[in-house]
Amino acid sequence: MTVNYSTPTVNQLLPVAGVRLGVTEAGIRKAKQRDLTLIELAVGSRVAGVFTQNRFCAAPVQVCQQHLAGHDIRALVINTGIANAGTGEPGLTAARATCGAVAALLDLSDRQVLPFSTGVIMEPLPLKRIVSALPACQAALRGDGQGWFDAAQAIMTTDTVAKAASQMADIGDKTISVTGISKGAGMIKPNMATMLGFVATDAAISQTLLEQMVKEVADASFNCISVDGDTSTNDSFILIATGAAKNAEIKTASGEDYAALRDAVAAVAVELAQAIVRDGEGATKFIEIRVEGGIDSAECKAVGYAIAHSPLVKTAFFASDPNLGRILAAIGNAAQFHASLGDLDVRTVRLWLGDTLVAEYGGRAASYHEADGVRAMAPAEILIRIDLGRGSAQAKVWTCDLSYDYVKINADYRS
Amino acid sequence: MTVNYSTPTVNQLLPVAGVRLGVTEAGIRKAKQRDLTLIELAVGSRVAGVFTQNRFCAAPVQVCQQHLAGHDIRALVINTGIANAGTGEPGLTAARATCGAVAALLDLSDRQVLPFSTGVIMEPLPLKRIVSALPACQAALRGDGQGWFDAAQAIMTTDTVAKAASQMADIGDKTISVTGISKGAGMIKPNMATMLGFVATDAAISQTLLEQMVKEVADASFNCISVDGDTSTNDSFILIATGAAKNAEIKTASGEDYAALRDAVAAVAVELAQAIVRDGEGATKFIEIRVEGGIDSAECKAVGYAIAHSPLVKTAFFASDPNLGRILAAIGNAAQFHASLGDLDVRTVRLWLGDTLVAEYGGRAASYHEADGVRAMAPAEILIRIDLGRGSAQAKVWTCDLSYDYVKINADYRS
Repeated sequence: MTVNYSTPTVNQLLPVAGVRLGVTEAGIRKAKQRDLTLIELAVGSRVAGVFTQNRFCAAPVQVCQQHLAGHDIRALVINTGIANAGTGEPGLTAARATCGAVAALLDLSDRQVLPFSTGVIMEPLPLKRIVSALPACQAALRGDGQGWFDAAQAIMTTDTVAKAASQMADIGDKTISVTGISKGAGMIKPNMATMLGFVATDAAISQTLLEQMVKEVADASFNCISVDGDTSTNDSFILIATGAAKNAEIKTASGEDYAALRDAVAAVAVELAQAIVRDGEGATKFIEIRVEGGIDSAECKAVGYAIAHSPLVKTAFFASDPNLGRILAAIGNAAQFHASLGDLDVRTVRLWLGDTLVAEYGGRAASYHEADGVRAMAPAEILIRIDLGRGSAQAKVWTCDLSYDYVKINADYRS
Repeated sequence: MTVNYSTPTVNQLLPVAGVRLGVTEAGIRKAKQRDLTLIELAVGSRVAGVFTQNRFCAAPVQVCQQHLAGHDIRALVINTGIANAGTGEPGLTAARATCGAVAALLDLSDRQVLPFSTGVIMEPLPLKRIVSALPACQAALRGDGQGWFDAAQAIMTTDTVAKAASQMADIGDKTISVTGISKGAGMIKPNMATMLGFVATDAAISQTLLEQMVKEVADASFNCISVDGDTSTNDSFILIATGAAKNAEIKTASGEDYAALRDAVAAVAVELAQAIVRDGEGATKFIEIRVEGGIDSAECKAVGYAIAHSPLVKTAFFASDPNLGRILAAIGNAAQFHASLGDLDVRTVRLWLGDTLVAEYGGRAASYHEADGVRAMAPAEILIRIDLGRGSAQAKVWTCDLSYDYVKINADYRS
């Protein structure tokens, strides 16, 4: 199931000058499935990334971080089926060998290639199959919307729809394009949301600012989502700037060019991040949690995540049951995840479901009627708003409900 | 479903001299259900408790904490159906009025009564029905095993079996008894595990040591369990010592009397805590997670809970699928809940499933075969052992799997 999301058509996806993509069937875990993607970048492209905080981060994540330090990335290779995580030294060797195979094919050095994997943890990467299939990927390379469309499909695992988005923006006298793809579905959680996300623009921007932008955009998009509170070993969000649009290179974060590019990149990233939640494993509802009135945004986010991660809240949403006390309990529970909330005075907390004030002064609002709650819980998209009443900071979290299908998908995933 | 647990028979429950219990049908939320319990304590009884850390803690929890400060508790009153949480000032008034009604009946002062509620949050407590039903509770008061057995049943909510346990111990030249009851099922999580637990002994012990003992025992029992990571608004664990056994009062924690009593109380509390997990909503497996080799027990517990709270791990257990990479991912994820784990070196971590070494050096153990994993995942009781390889501290966590029925129970709970 997917909540109010469908993949853009090929024509809605903008090419990004300097980026070509090719996919093929490598038979990594299952036959007859496009599971290998190659992305080739033009000379002079700049790349920045943010990665999972999981201590058992995957071999490709470790290799990515090493190779990014060289500041001269020319290709990305992405496989599904096997995560190459929890694979120790042999996993690192396999990830490096994958880069070596791509480098040999494209006449690059190993360190100019970034590897990505997603799938089952603790299984060895079938290196031979990947290496054998790479020439087919290379032969399939294309720079148009179809290339992006194919790649969006080829990086899916338990996703039910391919996720892609494009934006245009004016930078100086040039019109630049931004196109991105992502995969998600399960194991979605902050720091990073589990997922792979690749966003490219033809704008020219300095390496330093690109690295700043990838963090800012991640915090406003992929780091606002949660499906089940699990942080994957492989989460990666990569931002590519080829510079092919030939705008005057963006060198300062205070100017309007930086803002225009960041807004376009963020619009793509938010759409991709929300698409991951809308396509969350078993999701039937899309829930936006807005937390206002906190001392800082970190405590607002902690409250949002305490709600988003509560299985009791999530099952109530699945049932469209206005069992709103569970939300209050989750708010009260957030202190264990964020120390500053230890002195939260629940009498100042107000809770709205859509436009309906549900709770204030530590209990149910006098104006609240169950019928309003029933009405507010019915739609596929639900807004929860909390005012902590003790400051001016705010944060957003996007999540989904917990359904029978979540259990079914995750109990059956390997079979 | 319940994993390897059945309620003791009436004959297996020891009376505790100085404690009488009575139950009745008050019609609090549903008809024809015993939902109100009165516990009467003899003069001179001592009581200590630990309570939920949830900032939205329920009205009865707040009243309990105030009344316990008076050190002269003579009665407990427990209702199911309505939690009297998220009910603001009117909720506090209702909890105090319940104490007042009990006090009037038993010729006590209001502050000698402790109130407890469990059930739906944010609904008003039906005070009149409780007050009307209290005389029937009083008439039913009895001090034998049947009294405990009835109370164990009357405090159930979504529990499928009543939970009770007894122990005997020798203190000096006296044999003392310890009997306890608990309710749990959903919303089970540390600080406190969501539940009500009442354990009484006829041993004599000083108030100071009783307060120390309730914390020690909670940390070794109810604070080691998790069903779904939610911390309730109403969790309470109460330890009662009537002194009726007339042993020489225990006044020092270093002597063997304190140890003997603590061990007996802990044995009852561990049995009750494990029974809650075994009867976790939808549980089909009972899982013990032992984490060793940590720098301190807090980080060991954080690793245990990161595993116990991962929906991906829990669904894999439900499916009996040795998708053990999910456990590694959960271990790697624990750093976000406990800062000291930020420098965890995954190469020193070893993971066993039962007796089978599964992972070491950051990846799958060379000796591990999938068939061993399949065999280890099959039983209803599973032991996971982790050695963090960086210290000598340890901790245990008990949890259960996540099944279709968890979703069903929680999606349907109010209907």
